[in-house]
This record gives sequence, C-alpha cells and structure tokens, in this order.
Amino acid sequence: MHASDIAVNVPTVTVHDPVALAVRVMAVSRLPGLVVVDERSRPHLVLPGTQVLRLAVPGAYQEDPALARAVDEEHADHFWQELGDLTVGDCAPRRPVKPVTVRADATLLEVAALMARLHSPLVAVVDEDGVLLGAVTLERLITSLAVFGHVD
Amino acid sequence: MHASDIAVNVPTVTVHDPVALAVRVMAVSRLPGLVVVDERSRPHLVLPGTQVLRLAVPGAYQEDPALARAVDEEHADHFWQELGDLTVGDCAPRRPVKPVTVRADATLLEVAALMARLHSPLVAVVDEDGVLLGAVTLERLITSLAVFGHVD
Repeated sequence: MHASDIAVNVPTVTVHDPVALAVRVMAVSRLPGLVVVDERSRPHLVLPGTQVLRLAVPGAYQEDPALARAVDEEHADHFWQELGDLTVGDCAPRRPVKPVTVRADATLLEVAALMARLHSPLVAVVDEDGVLLGAVTLERLITSLAVFGHVD
Repeated sequence: MHASDIAVNVPTVTVHDPVALAVRVMAVSRLPGLVVVDERSRPHLVLPGTQVLRLAVPGAYQEDPALARAVDEEHADHFWQELGDLTVGDCAPRRPVKPVTVRADATLLEVAALMARLHSPLVAVVDEDGVLLGAVTLERLITSLAVFGHVD
C-alpha cells in the first residue's frame, strides 16, 4: 500500500490566516494536526495538534502551571478570545522547519517511520511538484496496517 | 467547565502488555494516544500516539529514512509482525517521566496549557488517590472550547 491509498483530503490554512481560524479548522475537520500551505498549495508547515494548541494558549500559561490554575473558571473558558488578529505566521516557530511530507508512492513503513521520528500524527502527501495531494493521519495509518497488514 | 465534564472512558494497557496489543488498543479506540496504568489503575505513562508508534517501528527505520525506503513493499506492510512478545515496558522510555495527568476539577485552560507544554494530545484525569477516571483528548478539548467558550 502507498501513502496515496490512505491519504484524505484536508482543509488547509496559510501563514496569513488568523490563529483562531486555524484552531477552528482543525476542530471541525477532526484532524490530529494542520497543514499550512503557501500560495501554490505546497506544504509550508505540518503542525501536530498540540503545536496548533500552543499557538492559541498564551506562553505564560504554558510555562507556569500555577498561573493557569489561578485563572478563574469564567475566564478560563474564554482564554483564546484574547488571540485577536494574531496570524499563524505571527505565532509559528521562527526557525525554518522542513514540512512533514512524503510522496504519493511512499510505503506505509516510510510514513510510519517519519511520523515516529518527527513526532507528527499527520503527514502531508505531495506530488512531484511538491503540491499537496492530501494527508495521512496516524489513526488511518495504524488502522490500515492492522487491517491490511495481517497483524497477528 | 472542568476536565471531568469532557473526559471519556479509555481502555488502558500495563507495562506487561505486548506492544502489538498496545497499538491495536489505540487503533480500535481511535484515541490520539494511550494511557499505561499500574496494578492500581493509576496512570504510569500517558503516551502520545506517535510515541506508541515509535514503540512499534524499529529504531533503525526511524533513524535512517533511506533504510525505510529500501524495504520492499511486501515487507513494508508487515514490519510490525517482528515485534513478537516485546512489552510496553521493554520499549518505553527508560528515564522516569511524570504521567500527563490532571485532577477532575481542572479547568479547560489548565488542560490546554498542559497539552501544549508537554506536547500531549491526551491527558489522563485522576481522582484524589491518583486513580484513573478517564481522559481528555485534544479534539474534545478544542471542540468544547469552540462550542461552549463562545469563540468569536
């Protein structure tokens, strides 16, 4: 089996989109992460879901659990309304990172090895021009291996 | 809202269970990770899905993408039949790691901050004795915040 056999269509965002939108896109799509593309639909970044969440949770709360605990309940449910117009580009990691991608003809072992090595539950599948074709999720990979790989 | 409001029941494994079983439990439950418990149902480890996959993909393939690419397709679909009887304990990280847990009365902001800081799409919810009550998934957290948090 190849990556293209189990890839699914995924909604995408660009670095110009608001973080609040990115989080909502991921929530509605029920994906374990998000593919950020450039203007030519080529993956620029593939973010695991916890990284997307990191964009939305103010750094202070991440670094200091006691601070997060101190926020009253009423406010705690609305913390990300403070995001305002921050974009994905504003919040994404500064150092250039190669996006987590494979070609359509990659085997499931290649995809699994990449997910495991880069800690990414989402891998973008691209064509020979680097344009996004779809994405493989960890869940779909494992299910495919279990169903078709004749696991004992 | 509290962690206990959005937690779900989750199947668990122990360090004595085979890795192959752990992967299948995660696949069938469709969770983004796995809670490993001790003999008193207290979380010992909370593993993100990519970490569970790391247990199953031989290290050589993770470190050398060219090696993974060199495996023929027939073999690539069956790579984890080589796991044999390896247990979760055999493969799990050696250095002691505090399991990713919160108490039932934690706010969603606390859970979000923990997920973001520890890169874990799964957080175990425990009672005052540290016994597992359930778990919160990243997807459920974000959906709850979007639906109940009145995101603009």
